[in-house]
Amino acid sequence: MAITLSPLPLRWDGERLHVLDQTRLPTEEVVLVLEGAEDTARAIGRLSVRGAPLIGVAAAFGLAMEVARKPSLGALERGAERLATCRPTARNLAWAVERVRAAALRAGPVRMAGAAREAAEEIQRSDEAASAALAEHGAVLLDEALPRRPLTVLTHCNSGCLAASGRGTGLGVIAALADRRPVRVLACEARPLLQGARLTIWELGRLGIEHALVVDAAAPGLIRTGQVDAVVTGLDRVAANGDVANKVGTYGLALAAHAAGIPFVAAGPSSSLDAALSDGDAIEIEERGADEVRAALGTLLTVPGTPVRNPAFDVTPAGLVWALVTERGVARPVDAASVAAIA
Amino acid sequence: MAITLSPLPLRWDGERLHVLDQTRLPTEEVVLVLEGAEDTARAIGRLSVRGAPLIGVAAAFGLAMEVARKPSLGALERGAERLATCRPTARNLAWAVERVRAAALRAGPVRMAGAAREAAEEIQRSDEAASAALAEHGAVLLDEALPRRPLTVLTHCNSGCLAASGRGTGLGVIAALADRRPVRVLACEARPLLQGARLTIWELGRLGIEHALVVDAAAPGLIRTGQVDAVVTGLDRVAANGDVANKVGTYGLALAAHAAGIPFVAAGPSSSLDAALSDGDAIEIEERGADEVRAALGTLLTVPGTPVRNPAFDVTPAGLVWALVTERGVARPVDAASVAAIA
Repeated sequence: MAITLSPLPLRWDGERLHVLDQTRLPTEEVVLVLEGAEDTARAIGRLSVRGAPLIGVAAAFGLAMEVARKPSLGALERGAERLATCRPTARNLAWAVERVRAAALRAGPVRMAGAAREAAEEIQRSDEAASAALAEHGAVLLDEALPRRPLTVLTHCNSGCLAASGRGTGLGVIAALADRRPVRVLACEARPLLQGARLTIWELGRLGIEHALVVDAAAPGLIRTGQVDAVVTGLDRVAANGDVANKVGTYGLALAAHAAGIPFVAAGPSSSLDAALSDGDAIEIEERGADEVRAALGTLLTVPGTPVRNPAFDVTPAGLVWALVTERGVARPVDAASVAAIA
Repeated sequence: MAITLSPLPLRWDGERLHVLDQTRLPTEEVVLVLEGAEDTARAIGRLSVRGAPLIGVAAAFGLAMEVARKPSLGALERGAERLATCRPTARNLAWAVERVRAAALRAGPVRMAGAAREAAEEIQRSDEAASAALAEHGAVLLDEALPRRPLTVLTHCNSGCLAASGRGTGLGVIAALADRRPVRVLACEARPLLQGARLTIWELGRLGIEHALVVDAAAPGLIRTGQVDAVVTGLDRVAANGDVANKVGTYGLALAAHAAGIPFVAAGPSSSLDAALSDGDAIEIEERGADEVRAALGTLLTVPGTPVRNPAFDVTPAGLVWALVTERGVARPVDAASVAAIA
């Protein structure tokens, strides 16, 4: 089964990009229409569009729209710089922008706009194909490894159709597994921005998959006491040695899964793999604003002005990752050689 | 330095119990006046009074007030039953109620009221003395073990003067350490009820200790990357083998601390030690209502009616606890023998 979303999380009409404003979900379904690099970068920066694969797709279209409006080398380079750096941690963003930029440069000034548009459309098609393929790889892997029925899978943040093309990555694996056998999902809320509570719960309801919401801090204890069979998440960037950057909190879940002897699976497109980084400590971790932590959906939770640390991601060492899944296959155990084989 | 709180978190006027309603902090300082077993049990159940040691003290006074109004065996037994079971996980609650009940039974019907009041007052005095003594034990231990200056200590939930008499337990240790040398505190917010964001941040501001707030999910990553020197918390119940039940999320912090090779210290009065339980899996974990998770301070965070799991506590195995601190000393390493020595 697939979610038929109306409006779609991301829709390209050939000229403009229509995105569902994810900051307004689940209470409102508001579509933003984007027309160039600047408004696309802003939509990504404020998380109206989010999820590592989806921000890559959005940024690709953002650059294509920019050079359609101003087919010049200057506009191309300025737009590419703005979009590639509007969030630092996910690998797909810079990767997708660079692919569109290179296609435009190869085409030259006259054919630049068409080449950029075609490159962006190709990125979207390949992301959708990657989602479908990796979901099958992950579902087959877990279906064979885990005998318990029904299976309880814990996930973090949102890695479904609001985070990638098609069915998504981590949540795509879970949905593909639910096609095969009964699955229950425990969804971590993912403070501070609550993508689990707001987005994953909303998707699971539409998918018709049994689910329950938990606070992030509750997950390790539920894992320790045998109430979880596997942890499955998306990923934002993978270093050459298999260290995985993903939404803050993933490391704690991986530690708990490892201690309990259950699988921790991270799934994403091969474009998330960054061979240029030897290990995860080289991955830049985005530190976001203090008000995200001081409040929840606008409600102040603490003393006004309280100092805050707000890393948006953390790094899970390869040794805690039971399997890494891309559209090209499964790395297991996760090390430099197995990662290179699915890059 | 000590916090001079006006109003006090808990004040006994000889006849009635005045408690600061912790559900209203930090925005409002509202004092509830309690007069018997039922209103005291309700105040504890809805977390107007919270923190394992403080609910023990409050319940003791609740029972004393009940038998002062109705000095009968029936009132004593009904009140004791109601108060001892209004929350299941903390050890002090049943322990304190049983001490007051036993004193009343020994005194007989005529002298019951006076004996119960004296027993409750003695519990409050001994809890205050325990807080002071365990804070010194913990501070000396960490001061000697950790060379880095300033020291960054991470804490969870609230274990300060709003959780116990005097300076508190975990936060009492941190405050005593801050008397000796520069200390910075990272406070986890403690979803769902945000005792860290609301209460610990409020106390740290009044203590003048440098601090920052983090979401619970961020703590393991900050620990892994060397940004934390020690984790110090309170505790709700300790089994004979040293397994510790504390606020949900403590287990994940202990896992991360162990993996990073930094101390995880749990501190509380010896009345939290429960020799009748062989290990932590025998500790009853309170599951609280779904609306606590669906919302934050009344703001809905997810799809209305979403199913929820909401365990209020988790269990940390003794092997992950670097030291256990009570007023009688330090258990380290934590095992059945060392725990028995500080019980």
